[in-house]
Amino acid sequence: MELSKRQEAILEIVKKEGPITGEQIAERLSLTRATLRPDMAILTMAGLLEARPRVGYYYSGKTPNKVIAEKLHRIKVGEVKSVPVVVSEHCSVYDAVVTMFIEDVGTLIVVREGGILEGVISRKDLLKITLGGQDIHKLPVGVVMTRMPNVITVGPDDSVWLAAKKLITHEVDALPVVRPVEGGDKNKDLEVIGRLSKTNITRLFVELGEGN
Amino acid sequence: MELSKRQEAILEIVKKEGPITGEQIAERLSLTRATLRPDMAILTMAGLLEARPRVGYYYSGKTPNKVIAEKLHRIKVGEVKSVPVVVSEHCSVYDAVVTMFIEDVGTLIVVREGGILEGVISRKDLLKITLGGQDIHKLPVGVVMTRMPNVITVGPDDSVWLAAKKLITHEVDALPVVRPVEGGDKNKDLEVIGRLSKTNITRLFVELGEGN
Repeated sequence: MELSKRQEAILEIVKKEGPITGEQIAERLSLTRATLRPDMAILTMAGLLEARPRVGYYYSGKTPNKVIAEKLHRIKVGEVKSVPVVVSEHCSVYDAVVTMFIEDVGTLIVVREGGILEGVISRKDLLKITLGGQDIHKLPVGVVMTRMPNVITVGPDDSVWLAAKKLITHEVDALPVVRPVEGGDKNKDLEVIGRLSKTNITRLFVELGEGN
Repeated sequence: MELSKRQEAILEIVKKEGPITGEQIAERLSLTRATLRPDMAILTMAGLLEARPRVGYYYSGKTPNKVIAEKLHRIKVGEVKSVPVVVSEHCSVYDAVVTMFIEDVGTLIVVREGGILEGVISRKDLLKITLGGQDIHKLPVGVVMTRMPNVITVGPDDSVWLAAKKLITHEVDALPVVRPVEGGDKNKDLEVIGRLSKTNITRLFVELGEGN
């Protein structure tokens, strides 16, 4: 949404002097209130200004970018997550690498019976191990994975924005999507129901850019 | 931007019957033109409707999502790219893996003298090779990299959206950002000036969500 020069001027006045009445804004711009009405309506509708009866207009602090930001916060992890690719912690490092290639994912999620989260292992982890000169046919992933409670996770009702923020802050490529097991320990017993990676974020970015 | 019920109704009428005059829309809704004026102004300003003198209003085809889409198309690769991490094609696979860990990147760009693009090599490529049982201290990356002209690239003035689309379509984690060398072959002589990865897209997503 592009603002007209007059709308930018109104925004500046309200930023500096708000709360301010429509009459006072019209005076500053040497225009009638009627002339300004559509502009005031636009700025209010777009969420840039807020109007309070008997007080006047004030600046909401929402730039046009804030409006985009709100949209990004409304998209939930559950809407864009992928199916998780899981292995057991007794799986060998060699088999884990093979699974990674067959499923073409960058991160494997390690679970115990019932699909309960135990850990995660990334391409980077596996590359480090294969260089180490150990027998990767005998070494179980349980020895080299990142283990709970050190795994960064996300819930299906969290925003995709929060997931993206965790990916960047914790420098990981993917997050297990989890929900607490009924009757279990909220911090320890997490059922894996999906996977959210930088690829999901990139795909969402492409879709948002297509305007769908 | 949230539309009011009346604005949604106007949008529906124009979608079905446009081009249509303001008077006709007012009639359909049993309202005066004056009442509708702010709504028409908002819908036009937001780019959802377009007005043509003596013809009337018609639907621009731009949904609110299209407005977000346009914003995403306006951000350029040059604004968000990272510095490239490069090696020569004579570099051993072992040294490439070490460089990857030291620089903490998922993709290395292979260049010849003058920073001219020769190929790319990913964590996935390297993981495959380290499993192969060859002597990775002697094997040069030139033998295992994806070589020009099969490398997917992007220019600094391309949109980040196009870059994201290429990452998804070609199933790669990062793209070299290149520009043609003056006086060189446009398809073969590309100077590497950056790197654009799914991490850059994810970071941009986080920033857009912060409203900055």
